Amino acid sequence: MSKIYVTGLGPGAADQMTIRARKVLEKCPVIIGYTVYIDLIREEFPDKTFLSTPMRKETDRCRMAFAEAQKGQDVAMVCSGDAGVYGMAGLICEVGKDYPDVGIEIVPGITAASGGAAVLGAPLMHDFAVISLSDLLTPWEKIERRVRAAAEADFVICIYNPASKKRADYLKKACEMILEFRRPETVCGIVRNIGRDGESYEIMSLEKLRDTQVDMFTTVFIGNSNTMELNGRMVTPRGYKDV
Amino acid sequence: MSKIYVTGLGPGAADQMTIRARKVLEKCPVIIGYTVYIDLIREEFPDKTFLSTPMRKETDRCRMAFAEAQKGQDVAMVCSGDAGVYGMAGLICEVGKDYPDVGIEIVPGITAASGGAAVLGAPLMHDFAVISLSDLLTPWEKIERRVRAAAEADFVICIYNPASKKRADYLKKACEMILEFRRPETVCGIVRNIGRDGESYEIMSLEKLRDTQVDMFTTVFIGNSNTMELNGRMVTPRGYKDV
Ligand SMILES: C[S@@+](CC[C@H](N)C(=O)[O-])C[C@H]1O[C@@H](n2cnc3c(N)ncnc32)[C@H](O)[C@@H]1O
Ligand SMILES: C[S@@+](CC[C@H](N)C(=O)[O-])C[C@H]1O[C@@H](n2cnc3c(N)ncnc32)[C@H](O)[C@@H]1O
Repeated sequence: MSKIYVTGLGPGAADQMTIRARKVLEKCPVIIGYTVYIDLIREEFPDKTFLSTPMRKETDRCRMAFAEAQKGQDVAMVCSGDAGVYGMAGLICEVGKDYPDVGIEIVPGITAASGGAAVLGAPLMHDFAVISLSDLLTPWEKIERRVRAAAEADFVICIYNPASKKRADYLKKACEMILEFRRPETVCGIVRNIGRDGESYEIMSLEKLRDTQVDMFTTVFIGNSNTMELNGRMVTPRGYKDV
Repeated sequence: MSKIYVTGLGPGAADQMTIRARKVLEKCPVIIGYTVYIDLIREEFPDKTFLSTPMRKETDRCRMAFAEAQKGQDVAMVCSGDAGVYGMAGLICEVGKDYPDVGIEIVPGITAASGGAAVLGAPLMHDFAVISLSDLLTPWEKIERRVRAAAEADFVICIYNPASKKRADYLKKACEMILEFRRPETVCGIVRNIGRDGESYEIMSLEKLRDTQVDMFTTVFIGNSNTMELNGRMVTPRGYKDV
């Protein structure tokens, strides 16, 4: 039975993928993904068949993967970061019910939360919530409710999809909600292009973050009430009691 | 200047580490970590100096790393999963303020949430909260508040440190709180020994999870209101609207 390996490539550079992901790419004759990620690996694997679809055509991309697998060859379906965090793993499992003759294996990768945290220092050392601000598939009210709940319960908050052209002020709105529960000096961090050319980061207060314009290549971290800046790093202590 | 590389090894098997983590291990003459993780890699690197301290002596382990680095050699401080998620990254940054002459670099790894999710299918496709049930360093009231907030706001919930000998019934307590907000049929999953010998998983209802005894080598996933079981996999759809 041929298989689809839904494979997370990590946030950027080729050496941020796991050895297992690398082995999957070596083994599968067909590699499918969104153009940008395909371009990151195409040169290294000149003998592969590369297939791609535009950004939004995700169900088509899944069906393409199953059609290739039904021809009897293993397929690597690649995503950035972790395939299982706002990636393609779920849709492949959903579409897969129409293709019982094709196996599915999920190969995890470093998600932007882990990759970005490492750039900033150690913001995720205590309980955290990962929230996407994209309202393409989720009603904004639901997102609001989660942002407030996470802020009130003092989670470190990690925000994916913080902005797009149509949603330029969503991060500002999220910060305003969080400011209802957290001090304006709360330590925050943003990381852009994690693991890619032009990687950059900044540590700033929640108040300043509210007035900062970010783009869709950015992951945002909002500290909990104990998070501090330490020698230019964003660090959340592991606990609330003294050790 | 010599450096400490705080390096996540991924959840288990050697090929779950990133290529970058592997390069760090190859490069550093000294490797420090908790005995269990050291034993996982010792055989492969016979020429290294391996140093270790018992489980709880984490500050000592950090000072040991800085002392070695001050001798002029690069040190890899290894943890399981991601160094930045309930790992050693934070403490190294904190202790590091006493050693301004030593560099610090955090090398992320696949955390148990990503690794376990891949075993179960795709439970983390929508917003999720990561919560540790260990009250060694955190007051139980704070943990309770977070569990309730995450349950009420319909986050997928990923639980680390779900139990220990002293805390045999903490997962039961957490499930009871979640049951105040979520249906008893809510789809949940547990994964034990992710990426290691004896890896196993089970998908079950929240009601059944409440009465299931797990151990400290287990990561627990509680689905959101939309999470489903699909051909033996735990899958959270990406959104709430139809595409
Ligand atoms: C559709 S989600 C995909 C997430 C991906 N599957 C992961 O696990 O990282 C896209 C969002 O992830 C974050 N992201 C992904 N890769 C990133 C990178 N290299 N640098 C910064 N942010 C990134 C950004 O917030 C971006 O808007
Ligand atoms: C102190 S935390 C360390 C987390 C680690 N730094 C990470 O990012 O995965 C220990 C908890 O992580 C989870 N965990 C870590 N490795 C695991 C594995 N291989 N299988 C199952 N759970 C694991 C368990 O819940 C365990 O109690």
